[in-house]
Amino acid sequence: MSKSPGEFHLIERLVKRLGPGRRAVLGPGDDCAILRPTRARQLLTIDSLVEDVHFKLAWGTPEALGARALTVNLSDIAAMGGKPTVCVINLAVRDGLGLRFFDRMYQGLRSAAVRAGVEVVGGNITRADALAITIALLGEVRGAALRRDSARPGDIIYVTGTLGDAAAGLRILSRRLRAPTAARKFLVDRSLRPTARLKAGLALARIKPAPAAIDLSDGLWQDLGHILERSGVGAEIDANALPLSKAYRATVGDDPALALGGGEDYELLFCLRHPVAAPALARRLGVRVSRIGRITSSGAAVLTDSPGSVRGGEPRLVGWDQLHSRLGE
Amino acid sequence: MSKSPGEFHLIERLVKRLGPGRRAVLGPGDDCAILRPTRARQLLTIDSLVEDVHFKLAWGTPEALGARALTVNLSDIAAMGGKPTVCVINLAVRDGLGLRFFDRMYQGLRSAAVRAGVEVVGGNITRADALAITIALLGEVRGAALRRDSARPGDIIYVTGTLGDAAAGLRILSRRLRAPTAARKFLVDRSLRPTARLKAGLALARIKPAPAAIDLSDGLWQDLGHILERSGVGAEIDANALPLSKAYRATVGDDPALALGGGEDYELLFCLRHPVAAPALARRLGVRVSRIGRITSSGAAVLTDSPGSVRGGEPRLVGWDQLHSRLGE
Repeated sequence: MSKSPGEFHLIERLVKRLGPGRRAVLGPGDDCAILRPTRARQLLTIDSLVEDVHFKLAWGTPEALGARALTVNLSDIAAMGGKPTVCVINLAVRDGLGLRFFDRMYQGLRSAAVRAGVEVVGGNITRADALAITIALLGEVRGAALRRDSARPGDIIYVTGTLGDAAAGLRILSRRLRAPTAARKFLVDRSLRPTARLKAGLALARIKPAPAAIDLSDGLWQDLGHILERSGVGAEIDANALPLSKAYRATVGDDPALALGGGEDYELLFCLRHPVAAPALARRLGVRVSRIGRITSSGAAVLTDSPGSVRGGEPRLVGWDQLHSRLGE
Repeated sequence: MSKSPGEFHLIERLVKRLGPGRRAVLGPGDDCAILRPTRARQLLTIDSLVEDVHFKLAWGTPEALGARALTVNLSDIAAMGGKPTVCVINLAVRDGLGLRFFDRMYQGLRSAAVRAGVEVVGGNITRADALAITIALLGEVRGAALRRDSARPGDIIYVTGTLGDAAAGLRILSRRLRAPTAARKFLVDRSLRPTARLKAGLALARIKPAPAAIDLSDGLWQDLGHILERSGVGAEIDANALPLSKAYRATVGDDPALALGGGEDYELLFCLRHPVAAPALARRLGVRVSRIGRITSSGAAVLTDSPGSVRGGEPRLVGWDQLHSRLGE
């Protein structure tokens, strides 16, 4: 199924301007892209940004939206310790958005693709009632991949970056939270312009045994749950060790609720069999790293104030729920 | 970005029940699927079915919808002469659709995947205001691929199957056309349960030189236009040679407008350098084949009543336009 005349055709030309490069024999413009064979194992993921579910157009620039649509996919590749290679884009367009908008959105997407070494090799455009950008991304992984099912009791749990910033930014955008001016820009940027930890993922994939890992898209507590479920283990998280940014503290205070439950940080959570000091890890991964807890054999996740002392029982499960929450509600 | 609790989680479990098989090291449930390396060149395509744009739920079964969502992608692989291998599914769900619906939809999708030898290796679920199923499909191609840009003046143009049936079926469903009972079922089925011509595509890929080809998703006239544009050639189509089904004739009559302009037949149009008799081709491709015209150097598409005699000038450009048409309008 494909294409149509008129403005549709013009928008489509934008897609076709992207790629192909060295990985594609044939890029956009045919029924499929043709890719060269690959000797490495491949990674494949698909993800989507839907208007009024994941974003509101009024909140950011079209460029940032395009970049973010790719970043949420890049983050999945980072979480496997892979290198992203090629993608195809399905664009659902609605009335009221002109060529200028799509031109800017694709510029943002293209820039993000170039930075990540990704070739856009094809796409499809369809009409819909809401704008939606769905991207399927291929990657390569050499050596062991970072999986969710390989955590073992005794593993030390780390996270990259700081937590809860994107969730705070989202609340500022939807006027549910007020922030000092300096903090506001940082937090809103963390929501609208997330970063995929590709370099950190590649560095983690060189550690043996391969760390269990996941990217934090739904919030630390919920995403940690995926690791525990798939690995059949439990975890103890030290509430005082959660990395909070200055902007987070200036806006939210010391309450770690958003750091535990807020989504879309796109940081990596990973588990090491052999502990490494956080500063040494940070140098290796090229990003701030914090040690936040350890994997246990208990089968449950427990939040503690200091290692061993439970902080008023288990925390609420406050993972960000795309299905039950709507932006601005 | 990923998942959420509650019913969402249940729906997700359905996706995870699919795959992996021999092509995936790791299937659904992690950040990405891990695929084994491939020695063949790969094909990659993405396509989407959106509620009220491509389908209405009242018109068909959830099983048929699931199968059709995969078929529109399979057809792109068929048009390149490839063999489909693995796919990932992005499901946008709206309120009001329960687990039973998704169970049945995935049953249809899974059956279609098994029939086509495709492994479903991952997926993503998001909330939206309309149901949308977006699938990214990988395939392999050995030997030369069937491309849109390789048609040359003198090539003979063929199509598989019959044309305009799906468009007639769509018009019957949206009450814009009445059909005799026997014809109605055939035409509606051709709209709701299309077939991808995978075997025919593979057989075409063994012909040398590799035929130019495209699948007919937007209508013969529009899709032929893509071949002409990409190959820098023209074409002469014999109106009397267009293959019309008995049901089409019984419902629409001898007017070839829907056969020329109606979309979603998912038949293949292809161009052979060395003519082959249609019955011999049909045996090789395993499907009815009709010779409908030839590629010219003129740069324009011309419809004739018999070879050489133009039929009242050029036909209207009546390609099916997803962007400007809405179902039932």
